[in-house]
Amino acid sequence: MALIVKKFGGSSVATPEKILAVARRVLTEKSLEDKVVVVVSAMGDTTDDLISLANAVMDPVYNNSREMDMLLATGEQISIALLSMAFARLGQPAISLTGMQAGVQSNTAYGKGRILDITPERVLAELDKGKIVVVAGFQGVTPDGDIITLGRGGSDTSAVALAGALRADACEIFTDVDGIYSADPRVVPTARKMKEITYNEMLEMARLGAGVMQPRSVEMGKFYGVPIHVRSTFTQNEGTFIREEYTVEEKEFIIRGVTHDTNVAKIAVLGVPDRPGIAYKLFSALAEANIDVDMIVQSVRSTQKNIIDMVFTIAQPDIVQAKQIVEKIGEELGTMGVQVEENVAKVSVVGAGMLGNPGIAANMFGALADAEINIEVISTSEISISCVIKAEQVNEAVQAIHARFFSAS
Amino acid sequence: MALIVKKFGGSSVATPEKILAVARRVLTEKSLEDKVVVVVSAMGDTTDDLISLANAVMDPVYNNSREMDMLLATGEQISIALLSMAFARLGQPAISLTGMQAGVQSNTAYGKGRILDITPERVLAELDKGKIVVVAGFQGVTPDGDIITLGRGGSDTSAVALAGALRADACEIFTDVDGIYSADPRVVPTARKMKEITYNEMLEMARLGAGVMQPRSVEMGKFYGVPIHVRSTFTQNEGTFIREEYTVEEKEFIIRGVTHDTNVAKIAVLGVPDRPGIAYKLFSALAEANIDVDMIVQSVRSTQKNIIDMVFTIAQPDIVQAKQIVEKIGEELGTMGVQVEENVAKVSVVGAGMLGNPGIAANMFGALADAEINIEVISTSEISISCVIKAEQVNEAVQAIHARFFSAS
Repeated sequence: MALIVKKFGGSSVATPEKILAVARRVLTEKSLEDKVVVVVSAMGDTTDDLISLANAVMDPVYNNSREMDMLLATGEQISIALLSMAFARLGQPAISLTGMQAGVQSNTAYGKGRILDITPERVLAELDKGKIVVVAGFQGVTPDGDIITLGRGGSDTSAVALAGALRADACEIFTDVDGIYSADPRVVPTARKMKEITYNEMLEMARLGAGVMQPRSVEMGKFYGVPIHVRSTFTQNEGTFIREEYTVEEKEFIIRGVTHDTNVAKIAVLGVPDRPGIAYKLFSALAEANIDVDMIVQSVRSTQKNIIDMVFTIAQPDIVQAKQIVEKIGEELGTMGVQVEENVAKVSVVGAGMLGNPGIAANMFGALADAEINIEVISTSEISISCVIKAEQVNEAVQAIHARFFSAS
Repeated sequence: MALIVKKFGGSSVATPEKILAVARRVLTEKSLEDKVVVVVSAMGDTTDDLISLANAVMDPVYNNSREMDMLLATGEQISIALLSMAFARLGQPAISLTGMQAGVQSNTAYGKGRILDITPERVLAELDKGKIVVVAGFQGVTPDGDIITLGRGGSDTSAVALAGALRADACEIFTDVDGIYSADPRVVPTARKMKEITYNEMLEMARLGAGVMQPRSVEMGKFYGVPIHVRSTFTQNEGTFIREEYTVEEKEFIIRGVTHDTNVAKIAVLGVPDRPGIAYKLFSALAEANIDVDMIVQSVRSTQKNIIDMVFTIAQPDIVQAKQIVEKIGEELGTMGVQVEENVAKVSVVGAGMLGNPGIAANMFGALADAEINIEVISTSEISISCVIKAEQVNEAVQAIHARFFSAS
């Protein structure tokens, strides 16, 4: 007997037929004694349709986030009811639970709620009655009893957190790819599917652009120590397990993956007086506006004393607001100007193995140099190295780096 | 300052534009100090759309009622979120609450929940913050914390029960007619709109076919002693108040209204042995199948001793099931046969005034006789008299009776 949490995304439940297919799929893999929780997202375009309705009514000047969550949470509520009916049709007792009913406790950050705790008594009670429990992903309840939606990738987070709270044997994330690859297979056709990857490596890959999993859900898995199995909706093949440590020796590759992210913009503040407190002033203003700053490079000008240039990267949607803030502060500080470049991308290598292996960075820079790709900004972490390059060279860069590190495969 | 509960049905909130119109309408009538709760139904066709989705997934062999309620409750949840956004757009702070959040406690009869209690602490707290509270009608929460929908006319019931629990000054039911009429104005163009009607009379009229209000919501009003103001969505005119007693002298008409109901079928069980327990056997079997029996007439045959005919009426949708049950029991009892007639209608006069005024029945029968309409079954209550007639004569019958009793108007 095993207790398994399975998560299916919106495209897997987009139509009544697909909902029935998900129910059949779950039952195919379920042995009689297994306890199964299924977490689902809203059907296909439901969320977009609800947002259109809201846009026709609301004035975005006002903060509508609580009501938006009340509205959007109906999407998952529809899916769970229908999927439970589908199980019943196949002779399998099932019950749907909203995020609130499943005990998904969130803070009150409407639209981007963070799970604080799971109180899964109802889920456990229904499992004990022999039912499959179908839980609405992407939603929870605030301390005030309000309905809230979780941030991006929220359904994955719901599933992993539930699996953790239920001490499930595994959490299976069904997706349209069959696992985690060493690079985006659309860019690198020879990319290899991994059997396993550690939470930390997956977190770093997600942070650096690997779209399969959102960082928050991987953090949850790490927190609870739940193995996450990322696998295909369309096949029954094994996918990739995300765990604390490798269970099989799979370390022939020091680098686990090459990721890229085109949702990047670069801002350069030129001719900044080199005084204490300048960086604080600049970046605290950006933080106040909720703008995430990623890579930061401060460079000294050899020709001018006490003058530096400050270069940093942010996500592209923040560019207009960031530019306004930086220009205002730049004027106050008497800088020489602000340059914005949107046409950039970030390419990264990730792998816990690089800790004990010097030369990874050199190898990566060498691959880029051989491909005649210029590096604009470099940053490193314990388990990753990232370079900002021109956006139009990003595929070429990923291919060159992947070939350098994975040529043995 | 007044505390008012206003209820708008699905057609009033069918589109984003109509939702904004409802918000404007509510604000037009609201003085600064008024506290307002708005109860809304699902937008226009939403419920039908959700039922279609369910039909594409479920197998009706299984009991899907809990999941159906989980599904259908999303309809009102969408409306309340959008209406709250509309208020915000007009500068009016508002908050949406599901039935559960508004404290609408129901029994567990899925699909036809009955309100057991209202615990309106959250509603009161939000009103005290100066917000308009927008509550999802037609839904509540079971003792197990499950979402449930109320029976027919459930949104009216939600509104009236909330008004009662909040000790509101009035509950306004906005509808597509501008009040309660002495007969259906589509049948009797000269029908007069009433200023007031008592709960008991309205209950009897609703029970006997007046479609404006469902009996359950009127019962709630009577239970809580909340005046119900039935009025038009399209005008600001006063409609009809439903109260315990008349506040102005409006008793020139002994009869308050003439109602009709074409959703009637007649079953005759012929040649029943006249023994004790026969009626019990027949009607308890129908009750077990949840079939409501309305009028019952037992007639003695002058030519045959110890043999009676039993005639009763039921709602048309129950006819197939009722016929099977009655035929089965008829065989066991050795009756002479079962006759079913669907082509009948019921016409009734209602008025508390008839208690002290003999001759009402004679007057009604006279009106029908003058119009050459044959009466098949008669039944009476303290405040009503009903006749079953041929369905094709129903309009003529209503007109004749209305003219007889309301000719002075």
